[in-house]
Amino acid sequence: MKKIAVIMGSDSDLPIARKALDTLAAYEVPFEVHVYSAHRTPAEAAAFAASARENGFGAIIAIAGMAAHLAGALAAGTTLPVIGIPAKSSNLEGLDALLSTVQMPSGIPVATVAIDGGVNAALLAIEMLAVNDEVLAGKLDAARAAARAKVLEKDAAVAAEFTL
Amino acid sequence: MKKIAVIMGSDSDLPIARKALDTLAAYEVPFEVHVYSAHRTPAEAAAFAASARENGFGAIIAIAGMAAHLAGALAAGTTLPVIGIPAKSSNLEGLDALLSTVQMPSGIPVATVAIDGGVNAALLAIEMLAVNDEVLAGKLDAARAAARAKVLEKDAAVAAEFTL
Amino acid sequence: MKKIAVIMGSDSDLPIARKALDTLAAYEVPFEVHVYSAHRTPAEAAAFAASARENGFGAIIAIAGMAAHLAGALAAGTTLPVIGIPAKSSNLEGLDALLSTVQMPSGIPVATVAIDGGVNAALLAIEMLAVNDEVLAGKLDAARAAARAKVLEKDAAVAAEFTL
Amino acid sequence: MKKIAVIMGSDSDLPIARKALDTLAAYEVPFEVHVYSAHRTPAEAAAFAASARENGFGAIIAIAGMAAHLAGALAAGTTLPVIGIPAKSSNLEGLDALLSTVQMPSGIPVATVAIDGGVNAALLAIEMLAVNDEVLAGKLDAARAAARAKVLEKDAAVAAEFTL
Amino acid sequence: MKKIAVIMGSDSDLPIARKALDTLAAYEVPFEVHVYSAHRTPAEAAAFAASARENGFGAIIAIAGMAAHLAGALAAGTTLPVIGIPAKSSNLEGLDALLSTVQMPSGIPVATVAIDGGVNAALLAIEMLAVNDEVLAGKLDAARAAARAKVLEKDAAVAAEFTL
Amino acid sequence: MKKIAVIMGSDSDLPIARKALDTLAAYEVPFEVHVYSAHRTPAEAAAFAASARENGFGAIIAIAGMAAHLAGALAAGTTLPVIGIPAKSSNLEGLDALLSTVQMPSGIPVATVAIDGGVNAALLAIEMLAVNDEVLAGKLDAARAAARAKVLEKDAAVAAEFTL
Amino acid sequence: MKKIAVIMGSDSDLPIARKALDTLAAYEVPFEVHVYSAHRTPAEAAAFAASARENGFGAIIAIAGMAAHLAGALAAGTTLPVIGIPAKSSNLEGLDALLSTVQMPSGIPVATVAIDGGVNAALLAIEMLAVNDEVLAGKLDAARAAARAKVLEKDAAVAAEFTL
Amino acid sequence: MKKIAVIMGSDSDLPIARKALDTLAAYEVPFEVHVYSAHRTPAEAAAFAASARENGFGAIIAIAGMAAHLAGALAAGTTLPVIGIPAKSSNLEGLDALLSTVQMPSGIPVATVAIDGGVNAALLAIEMLAVNDEVLAGKLDAARAAARAKVLEKDAAVAAEFTL
Repeated sequence: MKKIAVIMGSDSDLPIARKALDTLAAYEVPFEVHVYSAHRTPAEAAAFAASARENGFGAIIAIAGMAAHLAGALAAGTTLPVIGIPAKSSNLEGLDALLSTVQMPSGIPVATVAIDGGVNAALLAIEMLAVNDEVLAGKLDAARAAARAKVLEKDAAVAAEFTL
Repeated sequence: MKKIAVIMGSDSDLPIARKALDTLAAYEVPFEVHVYSAHRTPAEAAAFAASARENGFGAIIAIAGMAAHLAGALAAGTTLPVIGIPAKSSNLEGLDALLSTVQMPSGIPVATVAIDGGVNAALLAIEMLAVNDEVLAGKLDAARAAARAKVLEKDAAVAAEFTL
Repeated sequence: MKKIAVIMGSDSDLPIARKALDTLAAYEVPFEVHVYSAHRTPAEAAAFAASARENGFGAIIAIAGMAAHLAGALAAGTTLPVIGIPAKSSNLEGLDALLSTVQMPSGIPVATVAIDGGVNAALLAIEMLAVNDEVLAGKLDAARAAARAKVLEKDAAVAAEFTL
Repeated sequence: MKKIAVIMGSDSDLPIARKALDTLAAYEVPFEVHVYSAHRTPAEAAAFAASARENGFGAIIAIAGMAAHLAGALAAGTTLPVIGIPAKSSNLEGLDALLSTVQMPSGIPVATVAIDGGVNAALLAIEMLAVNDEVLAGKLDAARAAARAKVLEKDAAVAAEFTL
Repeated sequence: MKKIAVIMGSDSDLPIARKALDTLAAYEVPFEVHVYSAHRTPAEAAAFAASARENGFGAIIAIAGMAAHLAGALAAGTTLPVIGIPAKSSNLEGLDALLSTVQMPSGIPVATVAIDGGVNAALLAIEMLAVNDEVLAGKLDAARAAARAKVLEKDAAVAAEFTL
Repeated sequence: MKKIAVIMGSDSDLPIARKALDTLAAYEVPFEVHVYSAHRTPAEAAAFAASARENGFGAIIAIAGMAAHLAGALAAGTTLPVIGIPAKSSNLEGLDALLSTVQMPSGIPVATVAIDGGVNAALLAIEMLAVNDEVLAGKLDAARAAARAKVLEKDAAVAAEFTL
Repeated sequence: MKKIAVIMGSDSDLPIARKALDTLAAYEVPFEVHVYSAHRTPAEAAAFAASARENGFGAIIAIAGMAAHLAGALAAGTTLPVIGIPAKSSNLEGLDALLSTVQMPSGIPVATVAIDGGVNAALLAIEMLAVNDEVLAGKLDAARAAARAKVLEKDAAVAAEFTL
Repeated sequence: MKKIAVIMGSDSDLPIARKALDTLAAYEVPFEVHVYSAHRTPAEAAAFAASARENGFGAIIAIAGMAAHLAGALAAGTTLPVIGIPAKSSNLEGLDALLSTVQMPSGIPVATVAIDGGVNAALLAIEMLAVNDEVLAGKLDAARAAARAKVLEKDAAVAAEFTL
């Protein structure tokens, strides 16, 4: 199975990364984790991106805040799908990272998920792998069914508790 | 090869859709186009999503403006990757569609591209297919090389014209 | 009397829902509460909406955050009035939910109230029922009179305390 | 049948009002139109609101731009449902009117629709009347069916024209 | 001397009002304080505004949050200068109150100060009175001189502490 | 009678200034007009502000766009009331000028009106003068009455034309 | 004298670049112009930045729109000062480019000027060179004096034309 | 070596200033610190700016929040480079200060860094000095190398800890 790369721009993004990693682990999807900064280690980030396909990766998840260039910088160096997670930092409620991640110019897409959306970034990567992997697709479907069941269970509890 | 679905919330989104279709066609990636509204034809949208995997689709591109629910509604019905294009409408500069598309809750990702980003949505879908398709990956790499060459050509022209 | 449905997208919306329920209870307006997610249980949400009129509901209140599609998804399935409460989540101050709820396309209205506006959503539903219910209208008028009296009481206290 | 009031803050709002009026007319719902400004004719606006219920109105639609106080001012004077249409003016893309209309304090709800959303404001008013009017509910359902059919027709056309 | 009215939309605005009152008191400018809500006590607010000039007021300060209509509602009822303080509430960082207060339509101005700007609202009112009151103008000038001296004192302390 | 100063940061602000000047002229309030830039002619701006009171001015209106410092710069140099008009420039819809004008620090108020609000800035200045000028107050009241009559006239026309 | 580099992310930025180039030319500051995209030609952009100091450059001006990474990408590769011009593109009024340019992480500064601010970017570069160049500093001072004179000339014209 | 001035609009900006000072000290760049308010001590701020070049300064760093005019006010008085740090205050997440600092009119640039960006402001000033100072340039390069090494160290730690 292709591996998923999870790249943080800073180790302060670890709480978001963990959500992604836990999700990947739950699906038994192999991954590698790195801290590469688009600005402090641009060469390493570029080198990683350039060799990611041949190194067996199927998608790259990038997490960055503020002027979040990491996902775009990685996307510039590979034609693998790159998934960007805008991270909220201390100001502007994450809007800076969101716009810096999603508003990519024509030719270099970044698949952007919600601000701080670690779980969904991982799920999106898994969905990409599952296009050609029935087992993985089955797991995703099962998780949807479980999530549905959980909502319905809560619905039953809430509906019973509150009625007039 | 898996097909790509391009779903518009309204036929007023056709100019954005065309950019996606032209891109898919340039890569000889098969596609189907539909107009399904999350609000006017929710059942058809849901049915399309539910059967998309078995009908041979590898990814779904959804285009919608304002309270752009289409990508999310399709994502709710499939575990195929869903790519959302927020469409700018007459007010709010596309911010409404961007937030409605990208801020998905945990469990149901939408891979969001830039506002009105028809080309990038198609490229992202192609990148997903290319994870397991070396020919397609080669075409993507060639397009990147061509884009690079075009920039360098412009650079040469501009650098020659403007110097002091 | 018609019932009011209060639908949460997630049980984390319960604090907002409670404000709505307490208000409905204070007016002795019957209600039912559910947890249905536009994305995790779209079929149940759609089924609820589709049968809401025949099941004796007069309006539906929907609470959701982030890319808040729930109110719109319910509105797509019924021609009963649907009232949307945008819920503030951890980022963006509720602006994402507000725009996702209010910017509905032509044909499918959602009556949107303020961010986290549980009380007003309930009052709006009661106002709708009160159009044809003089007793309920009387209660609403009495509450307005009480609110007015309370403001004037505070005014008297404040005016007495602070003067130069 | 109850009448619907359509109140503009300024006759520059007439293009938006017309969309509401045309929709009401299509449903044969009686209406009255007024120009009342929350700031230039507050007494008239208040008097209209105060007597609206006894004058046979079932809901009030208010259209205003900038610091759009009209819907709130009317809502302060009646317990009929008040529907607010934020109107985009020359600056700020309608965000000012949207926030001024929707962010009402607890106790005085305004049912806010999308910026410039004349059609949806009328439909929302009709939905309110239709709670107790099966004929009107039937018309609304028919319109939804027609809208659905129109989307599917466009879908067929588009799907036929664009395929690879 | 003319009195200054300080009107709160809710007694939760008292912390902001206190800053205004303390400032007025420091200048020995007489004031009256009220809690009048544009929506819960519109008649009282209007009546206050209508009689403010003849009751000896020289300016009105209005404090309100969310869809902050209070300053505009008072301005609609008087041609005395009305000063609006947008109050930050739990969501949107005060942007809603700012736009609702400042974006007044042509004909009915509101002199808007910064979000939560209690001191400046009072100073602005005092400046208005001081146009024809040399004693008051002298106090304002003295306060500016004192503020300048305080900054320079801090400057001296900071400049001494931090130098390389 | 005190004069009103109207200061533009650039002569490109003349269309907004004209609205203010026409309004002042209609009230026969004397004025002086200047182009002073907070950044290109700070000394002249400061000198004007410093001597404005002794030169017979009663208030200063300042018009500026982008990082609109002019009103604040003038306010720093006088304790006369300074009224700021944020001017929309080519980007950001006037939000930059609005925040730069209104968010003044404690101690130095600027009375901010709506973006491009030339008429209201003048009316606000006139209101300030009218606090001690019954004739002027009478004119303001008359204008309000005329505005009210004009709205009611439009109301009559519209109400007659559109009814069902 | 050190040269100034003006780098465009796309030749569509040429109108903004021209303003910078004309300004540099007016000061007889040598420059070189390039089109390098952070995403389409990252290696060339990085190589340019890495060798800019030894190639005789004193500062780099970077122009880019949308998720404007160019200035940051160049800044990552050099410790020369990098000046970023956020370019407004078709959506979001330039806010995306502004936040993507200015919100750089600690360690890698970008000196950001106003949206579309070609002239000021050049002036800022010239100011940097002028720190150690009295002739250039003299030209800057002369330009300020000329700008001041021009404002005062306009002031005289306007003050004469409009007075009451 | 030229000195760097660090000017705070208020001593509440000291935490941000300290980051700048610590950075300057680490590079052994001489500095002076002042508290000058654009509004409370405009003359002192202007005088400082006017004499900064002859007093041996090479750049000025200005820190201010809300309607952050300080950087612009200083830039108006000198042709030395002025670096602006927008400071987040209690409301609006720093957006007010950012726009007030960066959106300067043509002719008077301010080199704006990120909200609360004390370190980067200092680094930008050092970069300016380093254009003609090889020792300083060497220190900057060394710091970049150290930052790179630190990221790679974290990368190694993280990569080792998290792999599947």
